[in-house]
Amino acid sequence: MCLTVNPGRAGGAYGYVDMGGWIGGQARYVMVPYADFNLLKFPDKDKALAKIMDLTMLTDILPTGFHGALMAGVKPGSTVYVAGAGPVGLAAAASAQLLGAAVIMIGDMNEARLNHARRVGFVPIDLAKHDRLGELVAAVVGEPTVDSVIDAVGFEAKGHGGGDQPAIVLNQAMDIIRPAGAIGIPGLYVTEDPGAHDEAAKTGSLSLRLGLGWSKSNSFHTGQTPVLRYNRQLMMALLADRLPIARIVNAQAISLEDAPKGYAEFDKGIAAKFVLDPHGLLVKAA
Amino acid sequence: MCLTVNPGRAGGAYGYVDMGGWIGGQARYVMVPYADFNLLKFPDKDKALAKIMDLTMLTDILPTGFHGALMAGVKPGSTVYVAGAGPVGLAAAASAQLLGAAVIMIGDMNEARLNHARRVGFVPIDLAKHDRLGELVAAVVGEPTVDSVIDAVGFEAKGHGGGDQPAIVLNQAMDIIRPAGAIGIPGLYVTEDPGAHDEAAKTGSLSLRLGLGWSKSNSFHTGQTPVLRYNRQLMMALLADRLPIARIVNAQAISLEDAPKGYAEFDKGIAAKFVLDPHGLLVKAA
Amino acid sequence: MCLTVNPGRAGGAYGYVDMGGWIGGQARYVMVPYADFNLLKFPDKDKALAKIMDLTMLTDILPTGFHGALMAGVKPGSTVYVAGAGPVGLAAAASAQLLGAAVIMIGDMNEARLNHARRVGFVPIDLAKHDRLGELVAAVVGEPTVDSVIDAVGFEAKGHGGGDQPAIVLNQAMDIIRPAGAIGIPGLYVTEDPGAHDEAAKTGSLSLRLGLGWSKSNSFHTGQTPVLRYNRQLMMALLADRLPIARIVNAQAISLEDAPKGYAEFDKGIAAKFVLDPHGLLVKAA
Amino acid sequence: MCLTVNPGRAGGAYGYVDMGGWIGGQARYVMVPYADFNLLKFPDKDKALAKIMDLTMLTDILPTGFHGALMAGVKPGSTVYVAGAGPVGLAAAASAQLLGAAVIMIGDMNEARLNHARRVGFVPIDLAKHDRLGELVAAVVGEPTVDSVIDAVGFEAKGHGGGDQPAIVLNQAMDIIRPAGAIGIPGLYVTEDPGAHDEAAKTGSLSLRLGLGWSKSNSFHTGQTPVLRYNRQLMMALLADRLPIARIVNAQAISLEDAPKGYAEFDKGIAAKFVLDPHGLLVKAA
Repeated sequence: MCLTVNPGRAGGAYGYVDMGGWIGGQARYVMVPYADFNLLKFPDKDKALAKIMDLTMLTDILPTGFHGALMAGVKPGSTVYVAGAGPVGLAAAASAQLLGAAVIMIGDMNEARLNHARRVGFVPIDLAKHDRLGELVAAVVGEPTVDSVIDAVGFEAKGHGGGDQPAIVLNQAMDIIRPAGAIGIPGLYVTEDPGAHDEAAKTGSLSLRLGLGWSKSNSFHTGQTPVLRYNRQLMMALLADRLPIARIVNAQAISLEDAPKGYAEFDKGIAAKFVLDPHGLLVKAA
Repeated sequence: MCLTVNPGRAGGAYGYVDMGGWIGGQARYVMVPYADFNLLKFPDKDKALAKIMDLTMLTDILPTGFHGALMAGVKPGSTVYVAGAGPVGLAAAASAQLLGAAVIMIGDMNEARLNHARRVGFVPIDLAKHDRLGELVAAVVGEPTVDSVIDAVGFEAKGHGGGDQPAIVLNQAMDIIRPAGAIGIPGLYVTEDPGAHDEAAKTGSLSLRLGLGWSKSNSFHTGQTPVLRYNRQLMMALLADRLPIARIVNAQAISLEDAPKGYAEFDKGIAAKFVLDPHGLLVKAA
Repeated sequence: MCLTVNPGRAGGAYGYVDMGGWIGGQARYVMVPYADFNLLKFPDKDKALAKIMDLTMLTDILPTGFHGALMAGVKPGSTVYVAGAGPVGLAAAASAQLLGAAVIMIGDMNEARLNHARRVGFVPIDLAKHDRLGELVAAVVGEPTVDSVIDAVGFEAKGHGGGDQPAIVLNQAMDIIRPAGAIGIPGLYVTEDPGAHDEAAKTGSLSLRLGLGWSKSNSFHTGQTPVLRYNRQLMMALLADRLPIARIVNAQAISLEDAPKGYAEFDKGIAAKFVLDPHGLLVKAA
Repeated sequence: MCLTVNPGRAGGAYGYVDMGGWIGGQARYVMVPYADFNLLKFPDKDKALAKIMDLTMLTDILPTGFHGALMAGVKPGSTVYVAGAGPVGLAAAASAQLLGAAVIMIGDMNEARLNHARRVGFVPIDLAKHDRLGELVAAVVGEPTVDSVIDAVGFEAKGHGGGDQPAIVLNQAMDIIRPAGAIGIPGLYVTEDPGAHDEAAKTGSLSLRLGLGWSKSNSFHTGQTPVLRYNRQLMMALLADRLPIARIVNAQAISLEDAPKGYAEFDKGIAAKFVLDPHGLLVKAA
């Protein structure tokens, strides 16, 4: 974890709130700090252009999903549950696939996202009907238990009734994870949430059934992804056609001018990942 | 984690509440289930007898402390904070020492236990005065941060004022752990605590500042210790005089008849670990 | 590694020369020693029967290839070279695929085996023309270097001219492995080879360019596979259709009576793996 | 492993033959390439000066020994054999001690070095009498086997009779290492040795009993040490008095003018490590 780039605290990211202090990543041109260290060089320009929509996912979302899957201990033959069918959840599921998982389920309450998840090869778990996750998982794998859980939702989780329930994903994770299993948590939990309804949530506190996790010897792995640790190997996998990540997250290039519209649609839960394309490169490549 | 020995749930232990279903470990004679698998053979009877008080610690407390230290990522040169100066905390500190840690602090509010911790070579952190742990840690290592934290207290934690605060140790751990650091949690957290004061604690729920841990990419490692994974190597260390564990936890052999008295003194916070010695073997060996 | 089942030395295998002392595995009926410990239970009989040809590979060849790939450090995005297109080499290549490798090459001098390797999705490297492996590898991946090498040949390696060259595979491996890369060696090297032509080979000595490997910080991982460590997870992968291993190794069921014929064809280099099927179960299942 | 600093090949070192191309490290003043990346900052100048002789060992010899011990899988309770009682061997033994090893033996044929090894707490193994290493090891640990072996000799190994035997250390290592044990090889093996007596050794080839290692599932870990991976944690251990490395390797500061004399004595096998001290700083600190 970078200790120095961000004057405020550990961790670095460019163009992200409160990480790195380098605002302005969503712009026509960007300055790349520490470019000699941070940039990943593609081995071949033409091949890279032909896959530029996939390679764009290396900047953030694919390493984030991959880190979540690795931290959750996904291995060949694993049964995996991913909470959240948004882009990070899909990238985590895609990473679990690349790591050899046997069964990959994705839970959500958004029908469009669940349909998309099914279309790209994962088992959708519809939490809109009820949220007894163990039952839903057992209907797929024959037992109310999985080897690995990835929380790709974070503190903005909603309960079955629609209200804020910031701890529900992690508490469900402890319900279904197997003894000695690991829970990867790429989903964001914040140190402060001033808009939260209750006092605890305002300071980033969650009411967690840690006693349940302790009784099963579970481990919990949080935090921002170390992108540089994974991006070269994931680039190799993309260039070798091992992972159609752009298709899996349903990436859509939009112009900078359309960004506000994209954000609005994303907030409404559209089953797509928008990629800002200020110079029309992605559109041309596609 | 053993999935089969305990009919109720995963995990096995003999003579322990709710684990294994093999009650009666504190007795004149015990039946050893799966003895061909469970027993550890000492290479030399005479050498073993000469160190039997140390070797007795292999049954539970030393592997538990060692597991906590390993899970917390203790390595040569680490700065370590252990919460709790009882026997498990001392065993964790001793294990951190064996793993090459540079600085090992133990926090508690019990003066006798802190004095004992100092006597056996660790840096006592007195939480009776105040519980601003970062300040106390900084006074020792120059920064309010350590590489590894081991929670050897669990759900029975008290706050500075003396009241039940089951989440305080883990929340303090997140305060002082370094970015990307790990927290080992050998201290017990229970799935149910019917005697707890508040509703959440009754179901084993804790109000954890997970947002703080997430922002620092921390990991959390819970659960019962896999004793068989460590007991042979720890036996070798004991036989080679690498770890005077009996002295470190202040082990005292008592007769079976004195067990109730021992429990009473332990509950009062005596700085000692009582070992039941039904046949007077330990007394003779010492 | 099992230290006790074999009276002669460490390591255990049933029905294999010099390992375990439990001869007679290729028979109509076998006694299974330590069956409570050794057997792997299939979760569902009917599903298992439908895939019995694949599941048969769990007894030996698939875990062996998988162990080789793991030891060679194969990860998502790796470029991999497997020496030997026989069944172990194909199982190693299949395992590398399951582990997310980007490019998987298999080298051999046997045309039928190379054609089969291509047919099941790997890049054949024809060593019959010349054995400048770096050039052949560079023609595929653009540099004379790979991330991981698996030696699935062992001491019976032949040189380009056809003569015994027991060290050639490992020396070629050191040529093409990247700095800090690992070499997995499931291919058998023996402690004694009385029929060898030169004195060194008779005592299992090889003339290895270790200086070359040292200069690149390579590591070398030898030995028999710990089947029990992997067979459950690989079973899960097979049952979930992640790995058509029977097709990849071209498994062919033959009767016990045809075993001598099968051995003869295998010695001639047929691109197939024969499975003895004393009771006609596999034939029926297929 | 650094791929870029050395134009010739992978690996970087400053002031070392054929690594890095930055000659001239043994001089009154040195230029430090990539100093922002390469330098290790001491947290406190005065404390650092008080231990400067120990801290000097962080530049090379201590991380090298530590890497060897780690690669050999040394853990709490391990029995360890180190080949070679020169400075790297002593640093490896000291590192094994820091890692919690139970028994640490060092083999050599040089009486002065063996005596020094005993004086600083290790078990000397005198190979001058005979080289049946298993017997010598068994006399210490009760069996002709150890958990970990570290080769701190390399290609310049001599046989019992005094002649060059570049493979003898590794072949002895395979003799005494336990099943599934690892061999760490910080001792240098070269790609070319033009002065060698036989043809194989001239190209860095060794006659290794790999069949023996294979039959025991051993692994072999070679190469230059990644100093930056370890130097911060080892600095912490030194500053906390966990490791009197200067005393263990018998470090002696000498002036630049005395360097040729120092080299001559070292070549004769003196039991000391000379540290060039061009400005008399070490002498003053001591």
